[in-house]
Amino acid sequence: MLQVSGIQKQRSGSPTGSVYVHNHCKNPKPLNALGSYIVHDETEYRDGLLPETRDIALPNHTETVNEISIDIGGSLSKLVYFSKDEKEEGGRLNFYKIETSRIDEFIEYLKTILKKYYHHDGKNLINPNLTLIATGGGSYKFYDKLKNSLNCKVQKEDEMQCLIIGLDFFISQIENEIFYFDEENHKYVEVASGELELDSIYPYLLVNIGSGVSIIKVTGPGPDNFIRVGGSSLGGGTLWGLLSVLTTCKDFDEMLEMASHGNNENVDLLVGDIYGKGYNKIGLKSNHIASSMGKVFKKVFEKDQESENTSSDVRLDRLEKLNQEDIARSLLYAVSNNIGQIAYLQAQRHGLKKIYFAGSYIRNHYQTIRTLSYAINFWSEGSKKAYFLRHEGYLGSMGAFLKKELDI
Amino acid sequence: MLQVSGIQKQRSGSPTGSVYVHNHCKNPKPLNALGSYIVHDETEYRDGLLPETRDIALPNHTETVNEISIDIGGSLSKLVYFSKDEKEEGGRLNFYKIETSRIDEFIEYLKTILKKYYHHDGKNLINPNLTLIATGGGSYKFYDKLKNSLNCKVQKEDEMQCLIIGLDFFISQIENEIFYFDEENHKYVEVASGELELDSIYPYLLVNIGSGVSIIKVTGPGPDNFIRVGGSSLGGGTLWGLLSVLTTCKDFDEMLEMASHGNNENVDLLVGDIYGKGYNKIGLKSNHIASSMGKVFKKVFEKDQESENTSSDVRLDRLEKLNQEDIARSLLYAVSNNIGQIAYLQAQRHGLKKIYFAGSYIRNHYQTIRTLSYAINFWSEGSKKAYFLRHEGYLGSMGAFLKKELDI
Repeated sequence: MLQVSGIQKQRSGSPTGSVYVHNHCKNPKPLNALGSYIVHDETEYRDGLLPETRDIALPNHTETVNEISIDIGGSLSKLVYFSKDEKEEGGRLNFYKIETSRIDEFIEYLKTILKKYYHHDGKNLINPNLTLIATGGGSYKFYDKLKNSLNCKVQKEDEMQCLIIGLDFFISQIENEIFYFDEENHKYVEVASGELELDSIYPYLLVNIGSGVSIIKVTGPGPDNFIRVGGSSLGGGTLWGLLSVLTTCKDFDEMLEMASHGNNENVDLLVGDIYGKGYNKIGLKSNHIASSMGKVFKKVFEKDQESENTSSDVRLDRLEKLNQEDIARSLLYAVSNNIGQIAYLQAQRHGLKKIYFAGSYIRNHYQTIRTLSYAINFWSEGSKKAYFLRHEGYLGSMGAFLKKELDI
Repeated sequence: MLQVSGIQKQRSGSPTGSVYVHNHCKNPKPLNALGSYIVHDETEYRDGLLPETRDIALPNHTETVNEISIDIGGSLSKLVYFSKDEKEEGGRLNFYKIETSRIDEFIEYLKTILKKYYHHDGKNLINPNLTLIATGGGSYKFYDKLKNSLNCKVQKEDEMQCLIIGLDFFISQIENEIFYFDEENHKYVEVASGELELDSIYPYLLVNIGSGVSIIKVTGPGPDNFIRVGGSSLGGGTLWGLLSVLTTCKDFDEMLEMASHGNNENVDLLVGDIYGKGYNKIGLKSNHIASSMGKVFKKVFEKDQESENTSSDVRLDRLEKLNQEDIARSLLYAVSNNIGQIAYLQAQRHGLKKIYFAGSYIRNHYQTIRTLSYAINFWSEGSKKAYFLRHEGYLGSMGAFLKKELDI
């Protein structure tokens, strides 16, 4: 149960005696998260953007908000902004994302959002306090573009720090935000925010899966006590890139949908395909994936020999021998399993039991969550646990939003 | 310098006082490797098989050999056999490989090799002592087929144990077999077998990269003191599978040749592509690969919008926007880097400084060796070392060959 109001109250009570950095804030205006809840609207599309993540209602936040925040990653740009509730007290946190390649569209969208924050000074619509807080690599790359296009201050913030501030906020303030997959009973389980109280939040491993993967050890308290211990170039961008040429999909969500209907055993080489059975001596079962996509070359070259090529290009002839759903499933498993294994090894190395998987790669997709969760459970023999978030793609932008308030 | 003869002599002198399992052999007939050397013939093709690994001359081995050995993996089958030198004393170890999908061709080839071992008993060509020692998953899967097709005994042996026996033999007996890549001076360096003497051979990590990857911690002495600590489904089969549909290549060697001409920066998303520069705070340089194939979807979908489709299939239209050499290079890097990182994490976890990379994935390919070597050097900050072998694909089959002799 959520019993506390705002970040400051909960954090200043740390039983370790350490002083949370927030206490040093020059301008502490915590977002009042008392009574906050995730709004269960139907998923909807607005303005042709990708399906939204659900809003978070903040019924007790009454202070004026003069900021919006963005996180411009390698593939996706994310936006968090606050809107007043017109019927009731309080307001909402709103979440949007769009491909970074559509940066100009994104800036146009930001303009429409920023307008809502202006007031009339008698002559013009203005707001001299309005700030865009920007994180992610694009906050550097597109800094001038943002500054020149938008009628507000632009404040850059460090990506890793924002991820951690955002995650800490979601863990400690938002009811029903965190969940895990219960392997035994085969179901999602929501974690009440009381279960992950401050004294037990730290330490943890944060695995953020965007275009690539960043693995961050967070010892806390506060967002400065972290180290990026590793990463991987095999992330969401890899899956998206490969499947955009190996399937006819138009976007990432369509690829995930395909993956959910595929059977990887048609393209992956299993232990049973090599041994004819399991390799019992070392505990590899016959359905263990020995080689992702390991059946493909055989199928492709056998078919090359058997049949006359019918198209102008041998690659297409070969691709047509395979089922694209199977490829999608295989590569989703391969990338997810690999991240799970590396995350486990890093958690093991640093003695961490809790692993939070975040980033837009996950998208609340069943196979992805199951695979990551299974990998952690399998490798750690149940000694480590994988956690997930409802707003998995918004840690950076949420953290940036709080960064102005925190003013560290 | 190689100063000792055979396995027994060198191993029984272990200063740890431990008794090498070979001392218990019922029938110890070590291969006499005194004065052995790798034969520098020109690379040649025989009987339409893949290019050969260089023979090993054994000028001092005079005993009769009554065996050949094979290792049937998920993608490739490997063969080791002995042939007498007709002009001089001694003989040679010969090495062959062929795709496992061509198992029937392989069996025909084995028949021709086995014939050389027969003698005339007055009526027929026979050899009642002739044994085929088989390891790898295919030794189980194709056991009946081998037994029914070949006129000799068939003896199955454990894959991991054979890998270790083979590696130990190559390390301790074959001059110029082991090498590493010297990052600083940017060149290959051969390791004299004296440098890797028995008391310092163990412990090590063996990373065997075939269709998939097996990671084995070997504490020695003897081939029974090992544990498979991990693995990955992202191996040679994955690269081969993906590139067989993403390029027009006909075989793995052609893919490696393509990779050597590609530029991964055209398809990989670099830190600099996201940030416009490096991410200095956490030490990621601008040319660091953030996301393998992370530029692809953008290129593909931009092109989708810009141009009219010209072919019957959108996948081909998309593929034609990319350079296949670049894709080959990107995926070779992705798979190699990933294996390097996992190997490092496992070596770190188990406190091992020496990492041997073996398996037919490597094929003495410059970029592969450099990438694996660089990964170990980078992650371990120079505290661990990656070693490679001239006969990298033949550890299992070589070990199987010695298994009859060792008769453990």
